[in-house]
Parts: sequence; structure tokens; C-alpha cells
Amino acid sequence: MTTQFVDKVDLKYEFSAKDACVARVEPGEEFTVACEMAYNGGLVTSLDAVIRPEDFRYPFFNPMTGPIEIKGAKAGQMLCVRIKEMELEEFGLTGLAPHSGLFQEWIFERQERFSQFKPVRVSDGVIHWSEKLKIPIVPMAGVIGVAPAFGSILSLDNGEHGGNIDVQEMGPGCTVYLPVNVDGGYLYIGDCHARQGDGEVCGMGAIDIGARLTLSVDVQDRPTRMTWPRFETDSHIGTVGLGRPLEDAMRVAYREMIYWLADEHGFTEADAYMLLSSVAEGRATQIMNPKSTFICKVEKSLLV
Amino acid sequence: MTTQFVDKVDLKYEFSAKDACVARVEPGEEFTVACEMAYNGGLVTSLDAVIRPEDFRYPFFNPMTGPIEIKGAKAGQMLCVRIKEMELEEFGLTGLAPHSGLFQEWIFERQERFSQFKPVRVSDGVIHWSEKLKIPIVPMAGVIGVAPAFGSILSLDNGEHGGNIDVQEMGPGCTVYLPVNVDGGYLYIGDCHARQGDGEVCGMGAIDIGARLTLSVDVQDRPTRMTWPRFETDSHIGTVGLGRPLEDAMRVAYREMIYWLADEHGFTEADAYMLLSSVAEGRATQIMNPKSTFICKVEKSLLV
Amino acid sequence: MTTQFVDKVDLKYEFSAKDACVARVEPGEEFTVACEMAYNGGLVTSLDAVIRPEDFRYPFFNPMTGPIEIKGAKAGQMLCVRIKEMELEEFGLTGLAPHSGLFQEWIFERQERFSQFKPVRVSDGVIHWSEKLKIPIVPMAGVIGVAPAFGSILSLDNGEHGGNIDVQEMGPGCTVYLPVNVDGGYLYIGDCHARQGDGEVCGMGAIDIGARLTLSVDVQDRPTRMTWPRFETDSHIGTVGLGRPLEDAMRVAYREMIYWLADEHGFTEADAYMLLSSVAEGRATQIMNPKSTFICKVEKSLLV
Amino acid sequence: MTTQFVDKVDLKYEFSAKDACVARVEPGEEFTVACEMAYNGGLVTSLDAVIRPEDFRYPFFNPMTGPIEIKGAKAGQMLCVRIKEMELEEFGLTGLAPHSGLFQEWIFERQERFSQFKPVRVSDGVIHWSEKLKIPIVPMAGVIGVAPAFGSILSLDNGEHGGNIDVQEMGPGCTVYLPVNVDGGYLYIGDCHARQGDGEVCGMGAIDIGARLTLSVDVQDRPTRMTWPRFETDSHIGTVGLGRPLEDAMRVAYREMIYWLADEHGFTEADAYMLLSSVAEGRATQIMNPKSTFICKVEKSLLV
Repeated sequence: MTTQFVDKVDLKYEFSAKDACVARVEPGEEFTVACEMAYNGGLVTSLDAVIRPEDFRYPFFNPMTGPIEIKGAKAGQMLCVRIKEMELEEFGLTGLAPHSGLFQEWIFERQERFSQFKPVRVSDGVIHWSEKLKIPIVPMAGVIGVAPAFGSILSLDNGEHGGNIDVQEMGPGCTVYLPVNVDGGYLYIGDCHARQGDGEVCGMGAIDIGARLTLSVDVQDRPTRMTWPRFETDSHIGTVGLGRPLEDAMRVAYREMIYWLADEHGFTEADAYMLLSSVAEGRATQIMNPKSTFICKVEKSLLV
Repeated sequence: MTTQFVDKVDLKYEFSAKDACVARVEPGEEFTVACEMAYNGGLVTSLDAVIRPEDFRYPFFNPMTGPIEIKGAKAGQMLCVRIKEMELEEFGLTGLAPHSGLFQEWIFERQERFSQFKPVRVSDGVIHWSEKLKIPIVPMAGVIGVAPAFGSILSLDNGEHGGNIDVQEMGPGCTVYLPVNVDGGYLYIGDCHARQGDGEVCGMGAIDIGARLTLSVDVQDRPTRMTWPRFETDSHIGTVGLGRPLEDAMRVAYREMIYWLADEHGFTEADAYMLLSSVAEGRATQIMNPKSTFICKVEKSLLV
Repeated sequence: MTTQFVDKVDLKYEFSAKDACVARVEPGEEFTVACEMAYNGGLVTSLDAVIRPEDFRYPFFNPMTGPIEIKGAKAGQMLCVRIKEMELEEFGLTGLAPHSGLFQEWIFERQERFSQFKPVRVSDGVIHWSEKLKIPIVPMAGVIGVAPAFGSILSLDNGEHGGNIDVQEMGPGCTVYLPVNVDGGYLYIGDCHARQGDGEVCGMGAIDIGARLTLSVDVQDRPTRMTWPRFETDSHIGTVGLGRPLEDAMRVAYREMIYWLADEHGFTEADAYMLLSSVAEGRATQIMNPKSTFICKVEKSLLV
Repeated sequence: MTTQFVDKVDLKYEFSAKDACVARVEPGEEFTVACEMAYNGGLVTSLDAVIRPEDFRYPFFNPMTGPIEIKGAKAGQMLCVRIKEMELEEFGLTGLAPHSGLFQEWIFERQERFSQFKPVRVSDGVIHWSEKLKIPIVPMAGVIGVAPAFGSILSLDNGEHGGNIDVQEMGPGCTVYLPVNVDGGYLYIGDCHARQGDGEVCGMGAIDIGARLTLSVDVQDRPTRMTWPRFETDSHIGTVGLGRPLEDAMRVAYREMIYWLADEHGFTEADAYMLLSSVAEGRATQIMNPKSTFICKVEKSLLV
């Protein structure tokens, strides 16, 4: 039996249960999904790519492959999306965009002459940043999420359904937990990065790149107090909070982690709260999307 | 010649150049400093310690040892404070305080019965959190800073002079870079932690503990565009930003790192900014002090 | 010729150009729109109304009447929605909701016994708050907006299209300026208030109430740099910014006002910026929706 | 008996109980205080004043006249500072400063040629903004506060002691309520404005100007739950909150107002909270100081 392949045709810019599913998979079945580079797709196929500002048309960012139906998934349950492998394309892109990112007036302030766009070659496990600097890749999927129960949500936005959350941990070896809002789950994925720094600060984001992901999806009962996306790696459990300012996103992530520790690992809530104050790993993984992402992680070795 | 020992007598609650120095050291000289536990000192000398809310009197938090004069340091230069070793006392303290931390109404909301204070034993390299859970220590100094040029600053506050910045990296093996605002430097140190989680969220902070630190301090010319504290470990260089909300603190830390990469490592500012978007490690190390701390780190292996 | 009446049937919870228009009006034509009270409608028809938490079902808040087609309006133009009159129903509602508003843990913290919902009678121009306290009404429409060009937006959300912006000025005598994103304009309106305090802080909002509004809508060319909703009263011109934290919303509102003063009133941008620092009136009209609202107003008497 | 006059000599840049008082007044005694223009004083004595960036030396902003001892004031009580009259000097100043205010990169971004400083003549009750535009004055004192119990606080900072709070209501006719932290009260005042817009957004602030204020100060018992400055005008009672982001400042101001309404005006806390949601007037009066100011006002006519 061959692995099902979901190609990057009929790309989507909204999460919506009104979409027709582009594939159907069984729980546990391994399948492969091709994802287009963020920003309208096909922009960079060589280092000489000519990129024009008018190629960027709001809100058509983060083209997604999907929705993918998970057979038997019922509203109220939880998807466990296992990312097994990621294979990156050869050219990636980053750049500076005015009115975006951490320093929104950077370009005006500096009055420098520089290329606003920086295409890079990605091969042999490294990003060829410059003649001298080769940066090891840390591949990840920036957009992963499901259709909401009512209405539609843009692929550049994020929320309890996941979406444009940009968490570096969500690469090979990671299991992402997402709510099932409608029967069938309706999973979408896209916006892969060869590597991303915390904050994704520069306005165009990390090293955007097309990719193929090998996935499998299980369905489980949803933990009683799980409202936001969660994830798990070999070493850590993690929660995702979204909001602005970062304090709001942080509160979501830490609250969800207290619930997780209390509901599934035998801590009282008060003890879990104090434990986080002593051992939590918390990072702002992006600040450029409509809501910023803050994650909270705890080492599994502390969950005795 | 014996190592100079600076005991924890005449503790300070302000950074001020009007203070008389409690010790004088030569640049490069190794010396030892004893620091009292945060919160008025001497609160916890056994697990049966009785701690009363009235023991906490604003603004007398974070008692500091200092000021220490660094001979020959001139205003406008930079201190390079090398933390060589830390030896912790046997009992530490954490706890929940109302109207403080990430969830300020936690105690009211939960209406739980629990000990508001949690003393813990620290020995054999672990924090004895519970019968089952032993947490490896990661010692650090929460308060480290220098006197300002004018006026005085409380030990619970923080700013360009350093102060209550609570960065986990500032333990053994770390060099902390601080401005020299007045001749002699006037270094203060205190508020040690056996371990601290990101955010220091629970309102009383991490595992507060008394400690002895072995230090040496060098004096160098200050980098042209260094305004805020910086640090260096074996693997990383790092900048410290302070502000509220976290976005403001983050902007400070990332801007300082761009300056560092541009001024000392051959990047253009634009390239440094894009590089951070792909490789920066950024964390909110505390959100409970008057200004929150955001750090930005870059691996030295990328500074080719 | 009789005035067209648009009844509150087929209420909407999304702004979407896929909706069929419920009415069509000519530019300048006077017409009347009936709006349902926020929160699912029909909740309060007497002071003895029984209101249950389960009557509130996310995301079905702020039922809207619309869309109303404005004949001839072309994408890229601007609607000028003139609110001529508002007639309120007899019963309004406010209340405290946990995890909402300025003090989200209020109910838990206080542990008080009080009615979570406070229905009030509204008659003779006053809100009958208590036996002693009668509060003069200041009627307004909380939700006013248009369909976006792509996708759909919930009625509880807000943005460049308007939506749940909750500005007290948007009552009788006010002209609201909105972008035209799709031909026909597709205007929606709802969520009327008998009176609203700045911040709309208590979690359920202001005095929610059903109402009938008499409106007319003109179509004009859109000012070059108008991106966000604007408004005008007899005495002031005003801009609306949306975002979190409030600083972000404020920046939007003040930037739009600088554009307005520079593009239409002869100020240089620098002079307009300094002028705002000396004369702007700025308020946070609500902080409970997904993005908070900050408005910036300037007296027309200063526009010489 | 002549009115005591406190001249602007020996100006202060810190609030500190270690200062020697420059004057002593009886409770209720009318006296006059001369205040220097913000920014080192004496900068602008004609429209041709030459102002150089190097005239601005951190932290020497907001020179204050004081401390003034209020005879008999005991720590724990409250000062009621009545502002009776303000007489302005003839020249005021505003301007744009890089890295300050709402749009911190404005100057870089715009690359405009304009005077960074804008001196204006103030006479006949108006600010002579331009040939055409004359703006009516609304005089106020930007800095008003008292010495803290421990340590010192810069005149450019603000907090529970008052300080650089920049509230437009604090002009003639206003009574400002401040805590007494040390016997004698130790009142300081300065930083007068001919007029100030909400937010004080442009980086150098409002129309800074020297002034003479006629004051009297009464001493009363401090309301049990008063922690932050409060004020009262003919028409309103008001509270002052300080913090960043604005949401934090807003929470302080609204909480203090709930306390005031509950403790002195017969509302339950829950009813006071809901009342604010319907009638509060809330504004961000400045966003350029270390902590931003949010005020909450309620009309006295609603306090039946």
C-alpha cells in the first residue's frame, strides 16, 4: 500500500468547515502533504528571483493545504497530529517589510540601501546565509490548525483552532494537539520554515520555504480543560497561548499548563503554579501575527 | 594571599552612589560575597519556619550586599562581572502572594486551602520539592547592578543600571556586563535563586535562597552603543531589555543585540535584524518586577 | 412615499459579502432599522426576566441587522452613515460576567452574593438604575460595519471594516465613515446601548438594549489615506483605532488623525502631530472586545 | 498679612524627604509658588530662542519647586491641594524628540525638514500656534507630588506619591488628594502646561511653560482604601492610575474609583463596577512618562 500524497493544489487562505476536503485519512495512517512557501507561492525558485511588493496581497498570505478529513473524528474530540518528517525545498526567503515586525519603522529610520528581500539556498542541512555563515536547519510548520465550528478564519490569523502560531517545536518528532470543532476535524497545514528565531521579528518572518511533511493523525478524547493547542516532544510537554500584549498570551499558556499538570499529573493547582515559577520554559515564538504566541514547556523528567 | 570575603552585614535596599563602599577590590581579583535570601533575610532556617505576611514590608525586598568599589573604574567604562561559583544555603522559599505575579487574583479565585509559603530543602544539587520530586538546581543571582549617576533606585526595581533583572543565565560561568556610572563602579548583588522558571510567575518568585558567590570584576571600555546590561556564557552572547509590556522589553533586548552584532561582529544592521528573525533565542525571564525582563541570545557558533 | 423599514429578522453574526442583502437603499434615502439587544436577543422583556448563563453561546453575540445594500456604492469608495434618530426599547441589561472585562476574576475574588445580571427599565429619557439613581440616556450603536472583501468576520470582532467598536459618539447626530470593500457596501448594524461608560469595563458591557435607528447613507470618494473608521459630529472630527494593548489602538487613531489634518486641513504632518499633543481628546471607549477601541477627536473650531 | 511666595530657586529633580523644605505653610493658608518651565528652565524667553539638544540632560527634566512643609501633616494622612489660580509666563515650548512619545521613529521615518522645537507666545488667554490658529489656554500643573517614605524618586517619574502625572484637570478649581508619607507632607510642584492634549503624544509633551500657582493645602484623614492620587473638580470626582501598558493604569484608576464609590457613596462594589461600565469617563492623559496615566471620572450629579 502506498502512502497517500496530498499535493499543493487548490490552496486555501481560510479555515472553514464549508470547504470541501482535499483528502481523507484514517486515524493513524501515514500520509504526505506538500506545502507552498508563504506569500502567494512560487516566489522563489532561484537566488535571482525577482520579488516585487505587489506580489504580496492582503490577506493572501500563508497558503494552506487542506482541509484534510480525519475519518471518524467527532466534534468535541482532539486531533493528535504527529509530524514524522519534513523535506524542504531548495530555496527559502526572508526579508524586511515596512510597518511589520518588531521594529516597524526600521526601513525608514535607517535609510539604508539594502535588499528588502533575502532569498537563500537551503541544502545539506544548512541555510546558506552568506559566504561564511551556514546555519543548521531546524524545520517546522508555522501554520497548523482546524476549521472553527462557525464562520471562517483567515490563514494569517490564529486562535483556539491553531492557525498561524509559528512554534519552532512543531517540526519532526512533535505531536500537536488540536481541538475537533466539526466532525472530520478539517486539518490544514502550511507556512513551513527552515529555521525560525524567537519572536520572528523581522517583519517577513523566518526562513519561509516550501516543504513536504509526513504526518499521521490520531483521535482521542479531549482533556476536560483543554481549550488551546498543546504539543509534546520527546523531552517536553507544551502549551500554546495567543494574545496581545505578550502578557495575555503568556497567561493563556501558563494557565493551560497548570490545568494539564493538575488534571493529568497529580499536582494541586497551587503546587503546579509554584512549580512553573521554578521550572517553566516560556518563550515568545512570534510577535508579528494578529495575536502573538507564547509557549510554556515543562520537562517530562519532572513529571514523576 | 587569602580571598577577600564580603559578608552580608549592612544590607542595602537602594542602589546609590551616596552609600559608603563595604569593600574595595582590584580589577581581576577573586573575592567572595555573601548574599541574604530575598524578603528581609533570615526568614527560613528550617522547613518549620513560621512566615507571616507582616514580615514583608514594602520596599524592603531584595536585600543587597554592596556597594563594592572596583578600583580604577571610571564613569563611562564597563564592568565585566565574572560569576565563578555559587554555594547555596540549605533552605529556600517560594510561595503565592495575592496581587502579585501572573495570576494576581489566584488565591481569591481558587478559594483553596494551601500553604501560601513553601519552604524547601536544597541539598545534594537538588531542590527537595516533594517526597517524589527532586529538581536539579540551576543557581543564579537575581539582583546585580551598579549605582546610578544621580539619585537612588530601589533594590526591587531595575533599569539600565541592572538591578532586579532575574536572568537565569547569570549563574556560575556567566560574565555580566554593566555600565560604570560613577567612579569605582559601586557594584551590588543579591536575591539568589536555587532555580527559576521563565516569567518567575507565582508572585513570590523562584526558589529564593541565601548564597555565597565567588566573583571577579574586570573593567573595560564600554562599547559605543551599549546602554543596557549584557552577558556572555560559554555558548552564547546575550542582551537584557526591561520594560512593560513585554513587547517593550523585547524591543530593547533585540535592538541592543543588533548593535552588538553590527558593531563587533561584522554584520550590517539590516542583516543582523534578519538574522535574529531566524536564530535569536528570546525569553521573558520575569514578569513580576516593576519592569519585566526580556533577554535575547545568539549562539557564538553563528558568529563566524 | 413611506420610509423603508428594515426589521430585525434573519439576524446575522458575521460580516460577509456572501450574505444576501435584506434591504436596498438609495444614497441619501432615509430609512429605519430595528436592532435586537446584544446576547441572543429577546432576553429581557421585563425586570423579572430570567437570564441563564447558558443563554450565552459563543460566538452568537451582537446579532446584527443587515446587510443593507447601498445602491451604486463601489469598492474603494466610502460610506457616510448618518445616524439621525434612535428610539430605545423599554428594558435594558447589564451585568457581571466572569473571565470578561477589566477585572476578570472579580466575581471569584469578591465572593459576594449579587445578581450577576442587572436588567433596568429605560423610559422618559433616563435609565432607572435604582430607586434613587436615574441616569440620563446617551443612545448609541455599538456595532456598525461593512462586509470585508474576502472571508467573513464575527459580529463580536472588529477591525478596519468597523464592527464591534462601541464608540459613544456614534448616536444621533453622528456621521460614521466606513470603507466600501465590495460593491453595494453591505452595511450591518446592531448592539445598541442606552448609555456606555469609557472602557465598557464590567464584562457584559454597557446598558444593552434593542433600538430603532433612523439612518441615511451617502457615498463619497474615500480619502487617500483613510484605512480605519472615522466619524464626525457637530463639534468634532474623530478617528477610530483598534488593537491591543491600548497603546496600539491609540497609535492607529492618532496616525489616522494626523493624515486627516494633513490631507484635508492644511497642516504639515509634523505640525499636526504636535497639535495633537496639545489639543487631542483621546479615550479608550471599550477594552472588552477582541481588539480595544481608542478614539482621537479634534474640535472643529481649531480647524481654521 | 501678605501671601507667602515660594520662588523658583534651588529647583529639585527628586522627591526626597532628605531635602530641606524651602517653605512652611499652615493648613488652609493661601500661598503662591513659582514654577520653572520643564527642560532645565529658562530655555525659552523669546520666539527666537536657540534650543540645542544638548540642553536636555537626563534625568534633569521637570525642575520642581519644593519641598513645602505642611505644618502638622502626619504620615498616614492626606493632603488636599487646592489649585486656586495659575498665571502663565509669556513663552511656551513644544517639539518633536526622537525616541520619545507615541511615534518614536517619526523624525527618522518622515525625513522631513522642520524645526524640532516649536516655541509659542502665550498671551490674552490663547496660544499663538500660527498666524491663523489661536488655541484657548487650559492651564494645568503636570508634576505634583510628595516625598516617599523611603528613598527618592526622580521628578520625571511617577507613582503612588503623584509626581509626573500630567492630568489636565489639575488646574485652577481642582483639588488634588495626595498621601502623606512623611510628617510635614513635603509637597513639590512643577512642569506647568498652557494646554495639553490627551496622551501628550509628541515626545516633548504639551505646551510647557513657566507659571505661578496660588494654592492652599488642607490635611485630612486618608480614606481607608486610598492608595493612589485622587482629585475633585466642581463637576466630577476622579482617580489616577499609573502603569504600562495603559490597561494596567486603567485597572488602577477604576479600582480606586470602585473603592471610592463603595466606601463613601453607598454603592456595593458590584454595583459600582457596573455603574462605571455605564457612566465612567476614562482617558489616557499621557503615555510618554515611565508609567502612563489613566484617569477615571464620575459626575457628581450621579452621586445621589
